[in-house]
Formats: sequence, structure tokens, C-alpha cells
Amino acid sequence: MIFTEGQVYTHTFHVTQEVYDSFQVCSQDRNPLHTNEAFARAKGFPDRVMYGNILNAFVSFFIGECLEIKNVMIQSQSINFKKPVFMNDTLDLTAKVDGIYDSVNTVEFKFAFANIKNGVMVANGKVSISVMP
Amino acid sequence: MIFTEGQVYTHTFHVTQEVYDSFQVCSQDRNPLHTNEAFARAKGFPDRVMYGNILNAFVSFFIGECLEIKNVMIQSQSINFKKPVFMNDTLDLTAKVDGIYDSVNTVEFKFAFANIKNGVMVANGKVSISVMP
Repeated sequence: MIFTEGQVYTHTFHVTQEVYDSFQVCSQDRNPLHTNEAFARAKGFPDRVMYGNILNAFVSFFIGECLEIKNVMIQSQSINFKKPVFMNDTLDLTAKVDGIYDSVNTVEFKFAFANIKNGVMVANGKVSISVMP
Repeated sequence: MIFTEGQVYTHTFHVTQEVYDSFQVCSQDRNPLHTNEAFARAKGFPDRVMYGNILNAFVSFFIGECLEIKNVMIQSQSINFKKPVFMNDTLDLTAKVDGIYDSVNTVEFKFAFANIKNGVMVANGKVSISVMP
């Protein structure tokens, strides 16, 4: 297979107004934590908290666009949200090939997103893909 | 806590052109499996395969909008994609309270999405939320 155990990929993502707005259209989620600054402040946050699943959309981009091949499909994924993300934050994704299963054409990646403003990890997880013939 | 072990929630989601387009804007993922019908057909699918992470956006809506309370935040989530989803499919989400941890204000749900055209489960997973004071 084209992948190598331990191989590392990186990509930088920007949480822009367009990313936020389009996620809101897609999900129709208008929970006040994400849409109402006063609500978010009352819960102890400095601003509206971005939708965590924006990061899962970034994982979609990583798998769909950042690998050497396009004939891939996500089988499963998981994510742990560690720190809130805010509008205009920039996140560095680091993903590592964590398992290669040639017999079933499956590759597993571990990934983490770090906020470039302080280097702190905001989320981590795993994603498994199948490589299609 | 307001939740009860075993409590079940349901919601119906439609994979519309607007959902697809907005996910594409959000993710910038233009992998040909999702955007090129000829490519998808060559891989054995009848049409472009919808982005799996559209279902994670639906999970965002479920947590943000379908519970009795709004002061919730996703801690972690996982999803397994079992069957492809296509444009204009309608999916029934069923989610069940699978664990309540009062000491840490955490609730876990198991969920599954079924395609209404045949009743077949297309994805399942788990989502853990924290209930904010």
C-alpha cells in the first residue's frame, strides 16, 4: 500500500466566518452556546464556542484532499474535544498513520488539532479509511 | 439530572442539496467520490456518495437542538459508517441515553441513523456530552 506506518501529515485550517456560517446552514444547529455571545459568556467562555463538528468537517478535508490518493472512503472516526475553539482561530492538524491492514485495505490514522495561538491541543481522535480498488 | 437511562430520542434528517452544498463550503472537501458521478460509478456506487461527516453535523443538531436543555456541550463522539448515503436520502436518527454520570455532569448516548427507503442502518455511534451548570 502507498502508506507507511508512522507517516505524518500536517495541514492548517482556519475557522472563518464562512466556515461557521456554512456549518450552521448544514447542521441547522443554533444552540445558544454557538450563536449567542451573552449565553456563552454566562457559561464562562469569552465568546461563542465554535461547533465541535467543524473539526470533523476538517477531518473530511484531510482524508478527501490531503492524502496521496483520492480513492478513499472513511469507515469510522472518533474525536475528543479538549478545549473550546473560537471564531478566527487557526488550527494545525497533525495526523499519523497508526495502522495498515492490507488484507482489508484499511488504514488508521491518529490525529490532533492544536491551536496555533498557544500550541495547545484542542481535540484529538482517530479515523479509519478504506482504500478502494 | 433531567435525563433517564434508556430514554430514546428520534429525529428525521433530509440530505438536501443545501445540506450537501453547505458541507462542501464548510469542509472544502471536493474528493471525487463526493463530487464526480463518473468516479463514484467507477467505484461501484450508483451516484456520488454523500460526505459521511454530514451525519456528524446532524449529531450536532441532535445535541444542540433536540434535547430538553440547551446548556450542553459535546465532549466526544464516534461514528461508524455502514452504508453509503445519497443525495435526497432521508435518515431517521434514533438516540438512546446509554449512561448518566452525575458526579461529572456527563451523559452518553448511543445513536443510529437508518435510511427510510429500506430501514437499513447506515451509521451508528456514540456521543458524550457535558451538562453545564
